[in-house]
Amino acid sequence: MEKKNAFYAQSGGVTAVINASACGVIETARKHADKIGTVYAGRNGIIGALTEDLIDTALESAADIAALRHTPSGGFGSCRFKLKSLEANKREYERLIEVFKAHNIGYFFYHGGGDSADTCYKVSQLSEAMGYPIQAIHVPKTVDNDLPITDNCPGFGSVAKYIAVSTLEASFDVKSMSKTSTKLFVIEVMGRHAGWIAAAGALVADQGIPVVTLFPEIEFNEEKFIDKVQLMVQKFGYCTVVVSEGCHYPDGRFLAEQGTRDAFGHAQLGGAAPVVANMVKARLGLKFHWAVADYLQRAARHIASKSDVEQAYALGKSAVELAVAGHNSVMPTVVRKSSSPYVWEIGHAPLSQVANVEKFMPRDFISEDGFGITDACREYLYPLIQGEDYPPYENGMPKYVSLENQSVARKLVAFDL
Amino acid sequence: MEKKNAFYAQSGGVTAVINASACGVIETARKHADKIGTVYAGRNGIIGALTEDLIDTALESAADIAALRHTPSGGFGSCRFKLKSLEANKREYERLIEVFKAHNIGYFFYHGGGDSADTCYKVSQLSEAMGYPIQAIHVPKTVDNDLPITDNCPGFGSVAKYIAVSTLEASFDVKSMSKTSTKLFVIEVMGRHAGWIAAAGALVADQGIPVVTLFPEIEFNEEKFIDKVQLMVQKFGYCTVVVSEGCHYPDGRFLAEQGTRDAFGHAQLGGAAPVVANMVKARLGLKFHWAVADYLQRAARHIASKSDVEQAYALGKSAVELAVAGHNSVMPTVVRKSSSPYVWEIGHAPLSQVANVEKFMPRDFISEDGFGITDACREYLYPLIQGEDYPPYENGMPKYVSLENQSVARKLVAFDL
Repeated sequence: MEKKNAFYAQSGGVTAVINASACGVIETARKHADKIGTVYAGRNGIIGALTEDLIDTALESAADIAALRHTPSGGFGSCRFKLKSLEANKREYERLIEVFKAHNIGYFFYHGGGDSADTCYKVSQLSEAMGYPIQAIHVPKTVDNDLPITDNCPGFGSVAKYIAVSTLEASFDVKSMSKTSTKLFVIEVMGRHAGWIAAAGALVADQGIPVVTLFPEIEFNEEKFIDKVQLMVQKFGYCTVVVSEGCHYPDGRFLAEQGTRDAFGHAQLGGAAPVVANMVKARLGLKFHWAVADYLQRAARHIASKSDVEQAYALGKSAVELAVAGHNSVMPTVVRKSSSPYVWEIGHAPLSQVANVEKFMPRDFISEDGFGITDACREYLYPLIQGEDYPPYENGMPKYVSLENQSVARKLVAFDL
Repeated sequence: MEKKNAFYAQSGGVTAVINASACGVIETARKHADKIGTVYAGRNGIIGALTEDLIDTALESAADIAALRHTPSGGFGSCRFKLKSLEANKREYERLIEVFKAHNIGYFFYHGGGDSADTCYKVSQLSEAMGYPIQAIHVPKTVDNDLPITDNCPGFGSVAKYIAVSTLEASFDVKSMSKTSTKLFVIEVMGRHAGWIAAAGALVADQGIPVVTLFPEIEFNEEKFIDKVQLMVQKFGYCTVVVSEGCHYPDGRFLAEQGTRDAFGHAQLGGAAPVVANMVKARLGLKFHWAVADYLQRAARHIASKSDVEQAYALGKSAVELAVAGHNSVMPTVVRKSSSPYVWEIGHAPLSQVANVEKFMPRDFISEDGFGITDACREYLYPLIQGEDYPPYENGMPKYVSLENQSVARKLVAFDL
């Protein structure tokens, strides 16, 4: 087998542990120097491949690559850019092959969520369609936790831990203030279509916190919601509301939609928390506070879940091992063997079964009234937030790495996106 | 000296370390059992004294009191309730004395910010005015860091660390996304009149992050602000904005005012971040994300500063020691002996010099253009975020304590607030 180089790219929204997978990919590739030459990273994701803007990861020190494991965000830059189908945009696929050929790239590691799994799947078909041998392996990542087959998606466990911890802390706060001041605290969390992150906030009920959760999976009903909050405040003197950004009315309207759309055509959300807080104020007259965690939640490496970091690394490592073993068009997955104690191993799934499939919360993970979670959900969630994996600190601040990210010399003419 | 009981109450907004001071007060009082009988805590602050709703802290185990040190929020409940002057509301002061007499209370430990320092000062004058011996000691606490004399206020160091870390993490995130997506990230932080917390966000500039900070001390100028953001985005490809909730126009209007006011007559703020984000979008067309940290920042015990926790505890301890030594009408303070290395000791100041004095950012802590901080500010801030002091975890969640908070039997007739 001729020694080939590898291309690695990060796609879509970044997470607290996407770099931990990158660390797994690069460290493992370095151990297979007999089969894999250099790992070239795409600067800003797949755009780096199309524009031949490649980063030579071989120039990074072992210490810096190791530091990726505790550094949030996408160390090589990510992008929101979705390749169309081969029929609709053959030019881009041809360009990818050109770049792969020019740099002797035989392995394509694409790291992202559902959209990038689809892109990776398309690339995996290029070998046949365009006569160039390429092995495409998808590395799963998405805080939304909405990829199928895998037990969970790296990035989710850490955002879940951040939201569970933050909701607990803020609930303790509002409880302290509730006698004369704030009685309602609303936290808005990510999750466009799936309520996994919101479910993590609902875990605080196990610590005696009165919490009402609004899932995207449950159509919003203002009357029922207000009744539930009123009941909680009557009983406990205060109430915490966890609202998913994807929470919507029966007609599909989001509680708060800013009117802008991203490159994939998804509505850009934000601001459900103030909408909900003001709604309760208008109906029940409660003094409120609200928070929108936004990027803070998915970037919060300082409170990452140890399970999550370990799985992220293991999936990156496995992606390379699958490639070396000759696989194409697959995604390594987390397979749960047991919840208590949490025992998992790495498996893999064909991309044809992953691409464009979204995993929602099962209805039996959401309580009957739609405002909380069930024991089945708890059993699923707790293992994913187990353990702490603190980054090193220097002078009071986390010591995150910024790589050199030196460019590989271009060999081709420029390409207009 | 006759053995007297003590009254302890938490006032105003709670913090990540207010309970660490409570821990210092109660543990130290227990060590002085020859002079101090029981520490009664006011349920929900001073309201607990007025309504004779006292908590018997002697019934709490040593382990639970020790756990206060790592538990955020006010363990006995806080309140927003300001006593008027002795002339304006003699009835309330007379009631306090009645309750103190009924429960043989000779020590009054009041734990809060500027407003409660004023209340504590008034109570300290009761000995003379109302002929009942009471020693009133103020324990400083406020995330706003706006109390005079003390080097800093417990609660601030931890919120500063939270904001510095969160701003760094979110900035890494937006940097990753900036090529094709989000180029502007806005984080709104607390600080009604003083920009100390916003200044902590500005520390990320030391890690190469392009950050523009909006302080309450600097009148907001839209043109200059937009120019600054544009410059940053041209140079770095993205920009982070830290906006204080107290940021306002030259005419005093806040960037975002919700129109409601709290018990002290302060405007309830929130929502400056979306205002700023939309302003930049309208002028520069940048895709944005924004976060409002709200309670998350002041409750974030999971990322508390070790300096802050140690000082909070030491100030609680010192308050009791000052009382035992016969002091009245004082507040223990943090005295900085050196910034590098950070060396501090505990001093104290007369309440007459503390009450109703607000400490703003010195102008020479803010950069000339008004959008950043100076080296003098850095030298001040870094020591306050030094060290991590992680709480214990169980099953993936911090193990915070909820006290029994058993009531002391009432001896007086009810009192209408």
